[in-house]
Amino acid sequence: MSLDAHIAALTALLGDKAVVTSANDRAAYEAGARYDTGKAALVLRPASTTEVSAALAYCVAHELAVVPQAGNTGLVSGSTPDESGAQVVLSLDRMTSRFDLDLDNRSLHVDAGFRLSEINRRLEPHGLFFPIDLGADPRIGGMLATNTGGSRFLKYGDVRRNTLGLTVVLADDTGTVLDLTSSLRKNNTGVDWKQIFIGTSGAFGVVTDAVLTLERLPKQTATAFLVPASSSSVLPLLTAMEDRLGAYLSAFEGMSKDAVAAALAHVPSLRNPFQGGLIPDYVILAEISRTWAPRAGEQSLDDVLESVLADIWEASDAPLSDAFIGPPHDMWALRHALSEGVKHLGRLIAFDLSFRRGDIMAFCARMKADLPNHFSGVTVCDFGHIGDGGVHFNLVVPKDSEHWNDPTFEQRLRTFVFAVAVEEFNGSFSAEHAIGRKNQPFYNQYTPQEIKTLAAGLKSMTSPGHLGTVSFGERIIRPA
Amino acid sequence: MSLDAHIAALTALLGDKAVVTSANDRAAYEAGARYDTGKAALVLRPASTTEVSAALAYCVAHELAVVPQAGNTGLVSGSTPDESGAQVVLSLDRMTSRFDLDLDNRSLHVDAGFRLSEINRRLEPHGLFFPIDLGADPRIGGMLATNTGGSRFLKYGDVRRNTLGLTVVLADDTGTVLDLTSSLRKNNTGVDWKQIFIGTSGAFGVVTDAVLTLERLPKQTATAFLVPASSSSVLPLLTAMEDRLGAYLSAFEGMSKDAVAAALAHVPSLRNPFQGGLIPDYVILAEISRTWAPRAGEQSLDDVLESVLADIWEASDAPLSDAFIGPPHDMWALRHALSEGVKHLGRLIAFDLSFRRGDIMAFCARMKADLPNHFSGVTVCDFGHIGDGGVHFNLVVPKDSEHWNDPTFEQRLRTFVFAVAVEEFNGSFSAEHAIGRKNQPFYNQYTPQEIKTLAAGLKSMTSPGHLGTVSFGERIIRPA
Repeated sequence: MSLDAHIAALTALLGDKAVVTSANDRAAYEAGARYDTGKAALVLRPASTTEVSAALAYCVAHELAVVPQAGNTGLVSGSTPDESGAQVVLSLDRMTSRFDLDLDNRSLHVDAGFRLSEINRRLEPHGLFFPIDLGADPRIGGMLATNTGGSRFLKYGDVRRNTLGLTVVLADDTGTVLDLTSSLRKNNTGVDWKQIFIGTSGAFGVVTDAVLTLERLPKQTATAFLVPASSSSVLPLLTAMEDRLGAYLSAFEGMSKDAVAAALAHVPSLRNPFQGGLIPDYVILAEISRTWAPRAGEQSLDDVLESVLADIWEASDAPLSDAFIGPPHDMWALRHALSEGVKHLGRLIAFDLSFRRGDIMAFCARMKADLPNHFSGVTVCDFGHIGDGGVHFNLVVPKDSEHWNDPTFEQRLRTFVFAVAVEEFNGSFSAEHAIGRKNQPFYNQYTPQEIKTLAAGLKSMTSPGHLGTVSFGERIIRPA
Repeated sequence: MSLDAHIAALTALLGDKAVVTSANDRAAYEAGARYDTGKAALVLRPASTTEVSAALAYCVAHELAVVPQAGNTGLVSGSTPDESGAQVVLSLDRMTSRFDLDLDNRSLHVDAGFRLSEINRRLEPHGLFFPIDLGADPRIGGMLATNTGGSRFLKYGDVRRNTLGLTVVLADDTGTVLDLTSSLRKNNTGVDWKQIFIGTSGAFGVVTDAVLTLERLPKQTATAFLVPASSSSVLPLLTAMEDRLGAYLSAFEGMSKDAVAAALAHVPSLRNPFQGGLIPDYVILAEISRTWAPRAGEQSLDDVLESVLADIWEASDAPLSDAFIGPPHDMWALRHALSEGVKHLGRLIAFDLSFRRGDIMAFCARMKADLPNHFSGVTVCDFGHIGDGGVHFNLVVPKDSEHWNDPTFEQRLRTFVFAVAVEEFNGSFSAEHAIGRKNQPFYNQYTPQEIKTLAAGLKSMTSPGHLGTVSFGERIIRPA
């Protein structure tokens, strides 16, 4: 069948609004947030689960490859078409009807096309939010596909922890709809099937709506910049904070000197908060928060933080060499400017790694010592979520580097870094970005054969059609 | 092959200590904590993952049905052999070697045979615990198989939420060992396979060790009994407490009058805490806790609780008709005595249900109104975890009831209750006990066909041998 014939058939099936064909209109769905560009055969924009089912059944019947796409803010080529011009993008951007808030249950049943910002805007009057704190503004479908965590993971966990149920459409011959939309917190009556569709980049099915648990918005917040006595003091400092603050502690973010310097140099709205303008080798942004308004007789959070820091400071082997409390808005502004700042230094090669918490600083030190021996001129500008073991390990290649125009360089560098992270430190090569075309080679390399076999079997059981940008093994069309 | 021949072969394979054959020694593995008795062909007690693998491969090769057993404290016939005398019990009680504590990572890699109490005894000097609060004392393998929650779910979640990784042995022809033992909090590099083995009653594989996240032990606790203004005030009261206490709130347990009365009547160590000894229709045990020692300048937790309750009390439509703060030990003693008390009233038929939080009280009211029309003389003695939607819905048949000796009664009653819970209220027929032989008919009845098909496929992909007391569909031995 010709593309025109497919377009005619899909338009008859889904309506005009759901089929985007002109190059101009397609463009917005072909380019990713940061890295990707590709070319789609056409873009489908179904507005309901029924339409998603019809679209997938059609594409399976005609052996069309489908790339599900939500906010398209991912960083691993998980939601953009490749260069072939043969793939169909299935956008969820019109799936924004259902928004069923259950205040008693503190849960929200919402369509997968809603953006995080819109959800939180609607929840704000109720004093609630979906507690995944991100720089980007993804749609819910993509957040589920990546199982993203963000800056407050330490307190609230990831998308998986905050998801009670979902509806998913399979890429099989009938576009099977699995209704897994429980609103229950406790339910152990068989396999928890929703788990299969979270964090797997849409390869096993297209999530069309989800039931999320909500948290109360913080009403009091205090933040401090902490300078650890040395890199080996970072974990003792985290442990000391957890000991004294428990569930108050809502962020413990590490920032390396080079990342901070880049942000201060290139983001004009920031002011240098450090004494004499001297940036320490490593800085922690610690945040504590409470969900209620200040009460009579209660210590202010700034006072709590000050007394805790004084307590840590006074220990004989204090892991702290400096600390100052400041306005949360300004302190987070610096943290959030790191990505932007680092981009100005040259060509950015970003890694989303995770480790046991105790291994993060050792890994970074190992890399800073060893990288120059193999990749001269590359700068490490790492920052990350020390509290949950996540590191945004950023490498920058300056413009005058010999590597600037080397087309093999990025892949060689990735291979080198992942080998140390995964093989030496038992870390993860994708903490919260999941897998896309970009991480496929590393899935292939680091996944044991017996796990690959299980994934391939699960793939053929659920969505035997061509779905997503990741291959989890042979795709066998199920007999009708 | 004769049983004697199997015993000889398994003894050669695993050693004397690992094979229990005498009726006397088998007895401890044949009776469950509360309900079950069965008869095993023999009991295997492997001491390592390698031995579990050898045992399972042997049993698959010889088509022996295997029932994995950990602490055997479950309540749904999930870990005891049936009456046939043909099943092999595979006990994990010798799997107690590994206990690797990672203080930096706040995690513990532990063998599946450890009891919860032993784990927490060893963690206590470090100020840590595994935060699943239960009346029973299960082993870790069983806690994973049921994904139990307990009384502090509201704050800490279930076993699933607190598990980072595990090792599982499959019942296939080689006894495949899947090493899923990550210590990472964030890792999205494919299917999160551990999820399949949590809460599925050991049917898909035998978990031999797990990596658990740990929490800090509370160092301050305050509790109160709250009397809601009416049954429709229970949820507004919970919401009011969550609004004002956020992450401090660690339990919100509901207790019905009949359950409290039974405990006070039959557990002599308790004293009646209510004014004039008059037990209210419904009582909430609320607990708040902090993980740090009291600090100078900080309000005591009793004062915090008192001021919060006063604040709620003073609202014009206060959901509270009475409240008093008291010693946590005494208040929890009453809560923990409910099960024991209820047992004295007659024949106990217990249900482990869950609902959206807003539906719990409506379900209980519906049942109290309707049950007498169908099952005369049956008393409802419910109590439960209102904060997470779980209800221990206990029905008691007094000795003088016409139903006392009716052998069909229990099944008719279960069918009636589940129909209302599941079909009318979208609730769960097993909140935290998972499925065993006891819940198998309800899995069969309430699971949609497409989910059953997926489960059967997953079963044949993972453990095609006869494993566990639950059938998730046809078991097809994989070709060698």
